[in-house]
Amino acid sequence: MHVEKHKVILTGIGPGDPELLTVKAFKAIKAADVIIYDSEQADRILDIAGENTEIVKINKDRSIPYNEQAEQIVGLIENHYAIGEKVVRLKVGDAFLFGRGGTEALKMKSRGIDFEVIPGITSGIAASNTKRIKISEKNEADGVVFYMANQKEEQSENLKSIANNLINGFTLVAYMAEGRITQIAQDLMKYGVSSDIKVTAASNISTANEMIKSGELKEVAEREEWNRIEPQTIFYIGKYVDVI
Amino acid sequence: MHVEKHKVILTGIGPGDPELLTVKAFKAIKAADVIIYDSEQADRILDIAGENTEIVKINKDRSIPYNEQAEQIVGLIENHYAIGEKVVRLKVGDAFLFGRGGTEALKMKSRGIDFEVIPGITSGIAASNTKRIKISEKNEADGVVFYMANQKEEQSENLKSIANNLINGFTLVAYMAEGRITQIAQDLMKYGVSSDIKVTAASNISTANEMIKSGELKEVAEREEWNRIEPQTIFYIGKYVDVI
Repeated sequence: MHVEKHKVILTGIGPGDPELLTVKAFKAIKAADVIIYDSEQADRILDIAGENTEIVKINKDRSIPYNEQAEQIVGLIENHYAIGEKVVRLKVGDAFLFGRGGTEALKMKSRGIDFEVIPGITSGIAASNTKRIKISEKNEADGVVFYMANQKEEQSENLKSIANNLINGFTLVAYMAEGRITQIAQDLMKYGVSSDIKVTAASNISTANEMIKSGELKEVAEREEWNRIEPQTIFYIGKYVDVI
Repeated sequence: MHVEKHKVILTGIGPGDPELLTVKAFKAIKAADVIIYDSEQADRILDIAGENTEIVKINKDRSIPYNEQAEQIVGLIENHYAIGEKVVRLKVGDAFLFGRGGTEALKMKSRGIDFEVIPGITSGIAASNTKRIKISEKNEADGVVFYMANQKEEQSENLKSIANNLINGFTLVAYMAEGRITQIAQDLMKYGVSSDIKVTAASNISTANEMIKSGELKEVAEREEWNRIEPQTIFYIGKYVDVI
């Protein structure tokens, strides 16, 4: 029997606010037969799905290597794809900017699954706009560095190169830096970044627990309270970082 | 007489595809009394507006300093805002990532105009997803640098710091590098970037003139044809840059 297949949709969902989905992602979610996701931030997005949509939550098991987990996820996608279902795979933020969507995309390609990728608003951009945190400045802040701060234990080479960016006027947007931002601030100063450069932290934007905190790099380096900021915080560091 | 005023909406529109607007921006555009814009890429977005929406195109005059032009734009916004109209100001990509939305936002604030900023999909993210160009890799490409290549004549400090990022495994996403990408590639090599690092250029994504071109850094440095790539091209450079 011939089964008509539908392209799998791999989509970024932005920070979790359904209004910050792209129109394209919104339509795909509404039309989905099955939605596969793994993050709490998708909760409000799932409300868009139709009554008969099957919702599959993947529980991340951190004892399993990421590659193996991606293999399982793509296996699951393939099962639904093969029987002609419209499969939508959700990724918080943007699937290709630290979303590890690339790994799943590669695996789909190698299994001959036809798919499409839809961009999403990454949290660093979402919070910047929503809370009016200026991250670039014409002729001055020519570059913005998005940095995933929790990937490597040994970060000194990363931080040396970011310190040079900051000295040049670039802005740093750091993800997953909770618990280590004090150390990062100390290292950036050690590598020559001015101690009075501006820092703004933004958490839980567009929820009831929204928080914004601003200071200078030296305060972040000295005060342990900056380390106790909750998960999903975005840190903005740079000469031109201003809350408008 | 009391005039009921409506928040001005300053919104990124992404790369110009209406499907890549956020849901929030889509609704704001549909409900607008007046739309103010200055870029050709907004053409397809304007189709969403209602029949009675006033469309105001600002013709960029490059002889006028940007700050003065922003002053005029915000003056225009204020005129419509003051009489109770719903004003939407469009910015290609994201308003805060090189969109200079920050300048207009500051001016609105200083005039007491109530406004909201909505994020947009920046071109470097849009093309990465749509053409499946991998820009990050867990544990390896910890950072992605978005760089506006045309802002300064003297770029050597910027390129030195970006070279260090690349050596560390970061990915460079360069905007407005047409006409100077050969020089940029030469400089990056001079500052220690491996000559076989991967480069992908993407133009006019999701239009009929769509183009993708891949090579190695040394080819970009040697072959003048890379300089002749048309405007609005995004260049992706990095060890982990792959077209899936």
